[in-house]
Amino acid sequence: MAKRKLETCFSPALFSPGENNDSIVVIIDILRASSAICTAFANGALSIIPVTDIPEAKEFKARGYLVAAERDGFVLDFADFGNSPFNFTREKVEGKTIVYSTTNGTRIIDLSSSAYKTVIGAFLNISSLTQWLINQDHDVILFCAGWKDKFNLEDSVCAGAFAERLLNSTLYSTICDSTQAAMDLWSLAKKDLPGYIEKVAQRTRLRDKGLDDCIEFCLTSDFTNKIPVIKDGVLVSNII
Amino acid sequence: MAKRKLETCFSPALFSPGENNDSIVVIIDILRASSAICTAFANGALSIIPVTDIPEAKEFKARGYLVAAERDGFVLDFADFGNSPFNFTREKVEGKTIVYSTTNGTRIIDLSSSAYKTVIGAFLNISSLTQWLINQDHDVILFCAGWKDKFNLEDSVCAGAFAERLLNSTLYSTICDSTQAAMDLWSLAKKDLPGYIEKVAQRTRLRDKGLDDCIEFCLTSDFTNKIPVIKDGVLVSNII
Repeated sequence: MAKRKLETCFSPALFSPGENNDSIVVIIDILRASSAICTAFANGALSIIPVTDIPEAKEFKARGYLVAAERDGFVLDFADFGNSPFNFTREKVEGKTIVYSTTNGTRIIDLSSSAYKTVIGAFLNISSLTQWLINQDHDVILFCAGWKDKFNLEDSVCAGAFAERLLNSTLYSTICDSTQAAMDLWSLAKKDLPGYIEKVAQRTRLRDKGLDDCIEFCLTSDFTNKIPVIKDGVLVSNII
Repeated sequence: MAKRKLETCFSPALFSPGENNDSIVVIIDILRASSAICTAFANGALSIIPVTDIPEAKEFKARGYLVAAERDGFVLDFADFGNSPFNFTREKVEGKTIVYSTTNGTRIIDLSSSAYKTVIGAFLNISSLTQWLINQDHDVILFCAGWKDKFNLEDSVCAGAFAERLLNSTLYSTICDSTQAAMDLWSLAKKDLPGYIEKVAQRTRLRDKGLDDCIEFCLTSDFTNKIPVIKDGVLVSNII
């Protein structure tokens, strides 16, 4: 039986839209968007509507929606909260639809819109998402969000953790240097993940803004079994 | 004293032209362009003219120039030879100007044209180029050529080897995740570089075309002390 293909993309600037019609794309942005989204669904959120524009987010707010909106680490004044997973508590989000204002996130969702399916991956849902991927008969692209179109280490390491698990299933093969590199980085990081993440640039950026309290949580495996999946541009939750 | 900045760029698609006016850009394309260029100068080539178009390369050939021209591993019929470093022998290139037809190479040279200086790096000239960089008082960008705009492992590992040496000099600092990743990959690769390179995609591509005889040579440190540098769009050679 031919194996499924596994690829990794380190940045939106390296993604080729349209080449992936039959693949499942896993969007990875662990500090902090994909971790926040997993947490929201873990705490009972009904759906998450990603929007690009601030005026659009404001309009949703006026219509009574909960709005998460942040730019460069600062919560926008009209929003209910920012991007920290700690904001998406059960008290706030259970049974609710949340509007999530994110420029990079909506761009990535657009880029991957021709894929067979697009899901959100993080350490927080790594085991259940891996099992879900294994249950599908499709190629997989691990799509790291990066930072301002550049490579980032934290998403690459998480992609390596997914790649290791998927290749261990023996259902996938890869001829992709990015996947090899991600797994090599993960092999170094996994011995002490919080220690390894100390050196990443985003660690420093979050610390400088006092937003680093959630990092250890974002590096936790299997906080939830929820799998955020995009349906008609809106995030909803699958459970394995 | 403020340290010089060290950055790494994993692909032309990730490079920001114009942000690098005061930096030295080191172009790394070890399998095989930057290794071939270093070898040509080691064997006495006078200069190398990079050209994009095949008709332009053909025109140079008609005017009596030596022409190296290859597309996807196949030598173009009018050319004197392809991209293997083994073609650039002393007998053929000493005292000569060579025209080098390369689509990706000329694009990368164009992208880095606003830099303070652009030089060519490989394992073949790693010690002398490192020393030359240390002697300049400028920021450094290690610019990996990649493959068809994607990340590749062999150039990233070589960038990591340069980064390790430059940071060991204590004259440079980095807050660049790509540099951290490159050094981590180099830390794994350096124990057995030919063994590590076995897994890279370009290794397989070259083997499939019978072009892999030069790989071990391309992984050799310090074959030459020549530093190919771009002057007015033409490659000439510095010696430290």
